[in-house]
Amino acid sequence: MDKKITVLPGDGIGPEVVASAVSVLQAVGKRYHHTFHIAYGAIGGTAIDQHNDPLPQETIALCEQSDAILLGAVGGPKWDQNPAELRPEKGLLRIRKHFDLFSNLRPVQAIPSLLKASPLKEDIVKDVDLLIVRELTGGLYFGEPRQRTDEAALDTLVYTRAEIERIVDSAFQLARVRRGKLTSVDKANVLESSRLWRQIVDEKKAGYPDVEVEHSLVDSTAMKLITNPAAYDVVVTENMFGDILSDEASVITGSLGVLPSASIRSDNFGLYEPVHGSAPEIAGKGIANPAATILSVAMMLKYSFGLIEEAAEIERAVTAVFEDGYYTADLATPGSRVLTTFEWAEKVINELDTSFVSDSIMTSYI
Amino acid sequence: MDKKITVLPGDGIGPEVVASAVSVLQAVGKRYHHTFHIAYGAIGGTAIDQHNDPLPQETIALCEQSDAILLGAVGGPKWDQNPAELRPEKGLLRIRKHFDLFSNLRPVQAIPSLLKASPLKEDIVKDVDLLIVRELTGGLYFGEPRQRTDEAALDTLVYTRAEIERIVDSAFQLARVRRGKLTSVDKANVLESSRLWRQIVDEKKAGYPDVEVEHSLVDSTAMKLITNPAAYDVVVTENMFGDILSDEASVITGSLGVLPSASIRSDNFGLYEPVHGSAPEIAGKGIANPAATILSVAMMLKYSFGLIEEAAEIERAVTAVFEDGYYTADLATPGSRVLTTFEWAEKVINELDTSFVSDSIMTSYI
Ligand SMILES: [Mg+2]
Ligand SMILES: [Mg+2]
Repeated sequence: MDKKITVLPGDGIGPEVVASAVSVLQAVGKRYHHTFHIAYGAIGGTAIDQHNDPLPQETIALCEQSDAILLGAVGGPKWDQNPAELRPEKGLLRIRKHFDLFSNLRPVQAIPSLLKASPLKEDIVKDVDLLIVRELTGGLYFGEPRQRTDEAALDTLVYTRAEIERIVDSAFQLARVRRGKLTSVDKANVLESSRLWRQIVDEKKAGYPDVEVEHSLVDSTAMKLITNPAAYDVVVTENMFGDILSDEASVITGSLGVLPSASIRSDNFGLYEPVHGSAPEIAGKGIANPAATILSVAMMLKYSFGLIEEAAEIERAVTAVFEDGYYTADLATPGSRVLTTFEWAEKVINELDTSFVSDSIMTSYI
Repeated sequence: MDKKITVLPGDGIGPEVVASAVSVLQAVGKRYHHTFHIAYGAIGGTAIDQHNDPLPQETIALCEQSDAILLGAVGGPKWDQNPAELRPEKGLLRIRKHFDLFSNLRPVQAIPSLLKASPLKEDIVKDVDLLIVRELTGGLYFGEPRQRTDEAALDTLVYTRAEIERIVDSAFQLARVRRGKLTSVDKANVLESSRLWRQIVDEKKAGYPDVEVEHSLVDSTAMKLITNPAAYDVVVTENMFGDILSDEASVITGSLGVLPSASIRSDNFGLYEPVHGSAPEIAGKGIANPAATILSVAMMLKYSFGLIEEAAEIERAVTAVFEDGYYTADLATPGSRVLTTFEWAEKVINELDTSFVSDSIMTSYI
């Protein structure tokens, strides 16, 4: 397979974690005989410094010619006082909007050796393996009219059938290649938009007889994500509920710093990025944790390129390195072995190597 | 003090828990020389059966002549298929709206002997003592226009300055008689209504120099309620965010079944009710847990009548009975002593007695 990837390192620890993830990507390419062509572009604060624009035209052009985007992180105190249009985050919002990346995937999976950092009891979270599918381009975030005077303010929660259908379809498709369970979250006892949402989920059901569907109210979902998170497989919801629930879910397993994400459109073109931020306070020290960005590369292989086996191999290697007791400084506990960003990524690459070698040995023995 | 209270037992376990709570209320009245006049009214399914109306006119009239309302719970399978206007829950929505009960108070406090039932690690939750103040009569739940066709649907999130000011003022006042910390939750990086909300909180600050104020985004609050809930004192937010966050917060300490709530208006008239539902499956067996309703009575004494000491005494007694190892069946663990609804309430009354007696002895010795 031959793929073009635009890499946008961004600000803070972005360049370090992205460099590590790209080295893992290239290692996987080598093992599995794929060619990944990498081009680098500017976004965020770095792009403001260089081009006076958090999302320069040349970056957009680069992305338009590629098959997927890998992003590090944007933002930092240097640009905090900038006007809205010259804020690093604006680059992120604009790129999602420009490429119509309506489906935001936020997986949360328990990693055994990280559970000690979870605020929840181990029994509750040890089997967590869920995927929140958040609608990313509609709802309250973009609805018109939106107005504010000194005396009143108004936002509009609006969804069209087409917007709901495409996100619901994508969630059904994800559920059928996972454990076959879909939880649709709404507030249908109160909101008209939720009633249409629920109606469309019910209409779509017939097309996915292999998927078991449940409806869940957003407030009761917020409870159950704490009391029984292992009960969820795929959770699909609108933009605002998805924002709240995906952030809530991100802290339950103690692995917030290692969570990847994807923002995808219907043709599987997508942008992949770690959930964590640019952490300017530790930037340039080589101590950042690259796991979230490496796992974002795995999501890219799976969701944009359909390389299921390669993605699973990266996920396995990442978990194995943690289980072997190797951590970056952020996750270190007494007795654990602390590695730099690049050393940690190298462990992952070695782990890929090992398994490749043992696979080859296996094959020659059979 | 002489107060009139309308008691609305409602459906399911409502009558049992309310009867227990009223007995505690009367015991407190006797000890502290207050007279509480109790009148009973119908609401919910029971009211539908008797009057074909989940909130009959005579119930409203009764409430209008009283100083506070104590409610059990409404709802049950018997009325689940009723049309919207004849659903038990409609009685609850209508009474809140009729009396303009805009301030919904949802306290969450760790009770040491119940922490074992928490999904969170004991260290994280043992010091939790927070109060969520939810705006209850505005926002997405009531905003116009609200429309739905087969092709699109729309809800409106609207707040006036007056609506925001009164809830923010009430939250500041609550914070100053607690630990002096107020967290205002919004989504000001996205929503116009949140920007007005944040502006008004900032304007109000000057009037409450004794209160420390922080702004927090709703998604990051959803995380921190899990990772560090003990950091919160009073949390104030709009209707939808409050719905989600108060339900999320309700499960963190393992004491969901014992949580009280209040819905209050500016003159301190209020409706008090347990957070739990009508639990029709155990209704009439005398095994329901009356703690949440008893603690709702404590809230009534504190917030509607200003009887701070009496309220604290009920809270102390409830905690003491739990700490002595007495539970109703829902909270029983191997080795705990299981009591019926009325036996448990009696333990609380005895606990009040004891302290009253020891106070008298103390006084006569001094
Ligand atoms: Mg968020
Ligand atoms: Mg709720």
